[in-house]
Amino acid sequence: MTFSAKQIADYLQGEVIGNPNVQVHSFAKIEEGKPGTITFLSNPKYTRYIYETQADIVLVNGNFVPEKPIKATLIKVPNAYTALAALLEMVEKNTPKKTGIDVQSAVASSAQLGKNVYIGAFTVVEENAEIGDNCQIYPQVYIGDNVKIGENTIIYPGVKIYKDCIIGNNCIIHSGAVIGAEGFGFSREKDGYRKIPQTGNVIIEDDVEIGANTTIDRSVMGSTIIHQGVKLDNLIHIAHNCEIGKNTAMAAQVGIAGSSKIGENCVFGGQVGISGHVTIGDDSQIGAQSGILSNVPKGSRIIGTPAIPVKNYFRSSVLFARLPDMDRQLRSLEKEIEELKKKLAEK
Amino acid sequence: MTFSAKQIADYLQGEVIGNPNVQVHSFAKIEEGKPGTITFLSNPKYTRYIYETQADIVLVNGNFVPEKPIKATLIKVPNAYTALAALLEMVEKNTPKKTGIDVQSAVASSAQLGKNVYIGAFTVVEENAEIGDNCQIYPQVYIGDNVKIGENTIIYPGVKIYKDCIIGNNCIIHSGAVIGAEGFGFSREKDGYRKIPQTGNVIIEDDVEIGANTTIDRSVMGSTIIHQGVKLDNLIHIAHNCEIGKNTAMAAQVGIAGSSKIGENCVFGGQVGISGHVTIGDDSQIGAQSGILSNVPKGSRIIGTPAIPVKNYFRSSVLFARLPDMDRQLRSLEKEIEELKKKLAEK
Amino acid sequence: MTFSAKQIADYLQGEVIGNPNVQVHSFAKIEEGKPGTITFLSNPKYTRYIYETQADIVLVNGNFVPEKPIKATLIKVPNAYTALAALLEMVEKNTPKKTGIDVQSAVASSAQLGKNVYIGAFTVVEENAEIGDNCQIYPQVYIGDNVKIGENTIIYPGVKIYKDCIIGNNCIIHSGAVIGAEGFGFSREKDGYRKIPQTGNVIIEDDVEIGANTTIDRSVMGSTIIHQGVKLDNLIHIAHNCEIGKNTAMAAQVGIAGSSKIGENCVFGGQVGISGHVTIGDDSQIGAQSGILSNVPKGSRIIGTPAIPVKNYFRSSVLFARLPDMDRQLRSLEKEIEELKKKLAEK
Repeated sequence: MTFSAKQIADYLQGEVIGNPNVQVHSFAKIEEGKPGTITFLSNPKYTRYIYETQADIVLVNGNFVPEKPIKATLIKVPNAYTALAALLEMVEKNTPKKTGIDVQSAVASSAQLGKNVYIGAFTVVEENAEIGDNCQIYPQVYIGDNVKIGENTIIYPGVKIYKDCIIGNNCIIHSGAVIGAEGFGFSREKDGYRKIPQTGNVIIEDDVEIGANTTIDRSVMGSTIIHQGVKLDNLIHIAHNCEIGKNTAMAAQVGIAGSSKIGENCVFGGQVGISGHVTIGDDSQIGAQSGILSNVPKGSRIIGTPAIPVKNYFRSSVLFARLPDMDRQLRSLEKEIEELKKKLAEK
Repeated sequence: MTFSAKQIADYLQGEVIGNPNVQVHSFAKIEEGKPGTITFLSNPKYTRYIYETQADIVLVNGNFVPEKPIKATLIKVPNAYTALAALLEMVEKNTPKKTGIDVQSAVASSAQLGKNVYIGAFTVVEENAEIGDNCQIYPQVYIGDNVKIGENTIIYPGVKIYKDCIIGNNCIIHSGAVIGAEGFGFSREKDGYRKIPQTGNVIIEDDVEIGANTTIDRSVMGSTIIHQGVKLDNLIHIAHNCEIGKNTAMAAQVGIAGSSKIGENCVFGGQVGISGHVTIGDDSQIGAQSGILSNVPKGSRIIGTPAIPVKNYFRSSVLFARLPDMDRQLRSLEKEIEELKKKLAEK
Repeated sequence: MTFSAKQIADYLQGEVIGNPNVQVHSFAKIEEGKPGTITFLSNPKYTRYIYETQADIVLVNGNFVPEKPIKATLIKVPNAYTALAALLEMVEKNTPKKTGIDVQSAVASSAQLGKNVYIGAFTVVEENAEIGDNCQIYPQVYIGDNVKIGENTIIYPGVKIYKDCIIGNNCIIHSGAVIGAEGFGFSREKDGYRKIPQTGNVIIEDDVEIGANTTIDRSVMGSTIIHQGVKLDNLIHIAHNCEIGKNTAMAAQVGIAGSSKIGENCVFGGQVGISGHVTIGDDSQIGAQSGILSNVPKGSRIIGTPAIPVKNYFRSSVLFARLPDMDRQLRSLEKEIEELKKKLAEK
């Protein structure tokens, strides 16, 4: 299927600059644009590519002013990234979906499936599980006893959901994610560890996306809760009894230890570690690889282990690299003072 | 099922303070306690909640002395956390278990299954594998050729165990864990890497628990060994040829590089990294996110990258944040010395 | 099967020192060598074991000169590790392979399978997928629509490959790896995040090995590319739109954020984190746990967060541990200067 610059601009309510009749059939990154493709410019790091791209159309922000002539047709929109998202969504919506209950699945007779549900091959739906309308459950998924899944949720191949967990509407869970495994709870006894049974569950609210191979453990009692709109990247670990606030986003490989509560609208860089029983205030931004040992107030901008304000961190980091110089300076000052003392004594 | 405070106290051999007839039917966290629930107080961080909790019963340590009146009935026990564990265990024991060999599983005719074994749907048990009495092998598990599993071991959905590995009695392995994948062994040649076949196996001794999506690689030759009572959290990586000592516990996302030997009774925080060919002494405690580059003696308490004693680390960390001040101080001392020199010369 | 030292030396074109008739039947680590086993010495850390090993044969480098008598027969070869690899490969080649299309698999009628392909139980091959000659696809694997896999590739149990991805020849992908999950792309709107559909794919070229539970996300548009000969260890995260250069090797738990380009022949230690939109030059070596925030030139040797040259890093680290001393020194210098000032004023 092909579209003209004019058709696309009309759909996005944008403004064409250049040839409105040029046709495109697929998407490309700006640095890899080829004839017949549409691309976008949003991150200023990539601006230089717009003057060389072979793509036929480029979506640009309304305030974009070229410094040189551009071969491609431009479509000006308020936000190029959002406009791209709208186009990609249109394409996605027109992709045919898998349907039906595969004969090679294993759905318990007590399980309840909504309308228009897809269940792939070798997927297991255990006793009393409930799956809402329009869910897509891909092959090789495990849905334990009593699990409840809302409507329009997509569960990719191989996801494992332990018994009693609750998943909301419009969620996406990627392959290999494990929801509701037993939390890491032991009491130390003389001759080893004694397991604390983890009798709670995991609750995932609406509009949550969970990345590939991410693990979210069930609570000792009560629930581990992932609130509405949370976005978790791949290989993240959320321990038992945690709570992640609404619309918080975490990059890959973050680890949150047990019973910590993360506020709303937080953004975590990759590989961040949060200690147990810690509270992170709403709207906090935590830099990649940070280690957080204690409570953090609302709106913090921190980084490092232990984390400190971002500005201070980078200043201190520069000086960390200069520590050998500082040490040399210290020693030379010591010597100078010794000499001064001697001279003074001589006077 | 409901229990009275008296019944619970009798079971735990504890002492009731308050109404012995109050009835509870489920567990709750102390800060989320509701009528009809029992909770516990162990971590002093949560003491303030005992004065407000709506839970009807709270398990407390023998030495707990309230500072204000408490609405709930208390049950005093030597250790509230252990008592909670005992109650949770009782509940767990009374939960019905899955049984039988699912007709949709694939068990090789040469495999040997013990008495009372559960094999879930779409699980594969390959040639000559042996599974001991009372094991529960959930759906979608892969058990390779010649794998041996002891008695009473639980393997959750989707675990993959490569050929020749040995798992002990009373182990628990959570979803997505991979046991016995090939270690990361290559020799660099002129035009790329040459794979070193990994012909060994993994041995997991009794009473080991392995978290979701944790990976333990097989040895080049001989065995990667996880000794008795080890507890590994989620998303941990244990490389080929490693050995983890008895009753050592590791929090999530720890990574141990090849051929390292970890002692007994060690405790590792989350996201710790251990270099290859390193020995960690028994009873060592390593703080979260630490990086260990060389051998560590028995009983160490270290943290940081490279790790140093805990006390020193926190002192140095405070000063890291103050490096810009120290730098300013240094510069001002330099100036003062210059001035002193001048003045001295003038005298 | 047993082999004599002479037979092995002939196969490796090595030189026997000691009894050429001694027979061995299996491999052992040098510190665990038993009669009837062959071992090797390559890493000098293990040299002391050669004088005590019970193994009957030890492969040693050509330049190895014993300092004490050795009981074992030695076989001198140019490179002991490579020679070991050759022996292990011989054993591996003689291990029987799984064959045939399991009746309990689900292969779409539109999928194309090459000659001599193995498809294990409960594996799904979706519409229009293509699998080349001699591939071994173990049980419980998911191969999405239109996926193309070259020849001689091994896919271990439980790997998930999303639609449209392309895998080359002679690749090995370990259990739990997820190829082509949707990249972590969202645009922030007033009331939460809006998903950016990820319409691209992942391309994995020839001779790539991917570790257990590693995740490689599909591109927004275009491809995430893993070039020829790349070796990725376990639990690694490669985000959308990344490109990993030829023959680059990464240890476990590395995370690469979106759109970063890693050069050829790089070596990354474990747990390294790379920011998004960063370029790492060819032949770079990055130490374990490093955090890289900006572009790195060809041939860099760096470590730390933010990363600095290796030599500087270790110097600075030593001084980090000594910061309390430096601080004390600073304070005492200040005092001394105060006293000097006073004395000078008195003169």
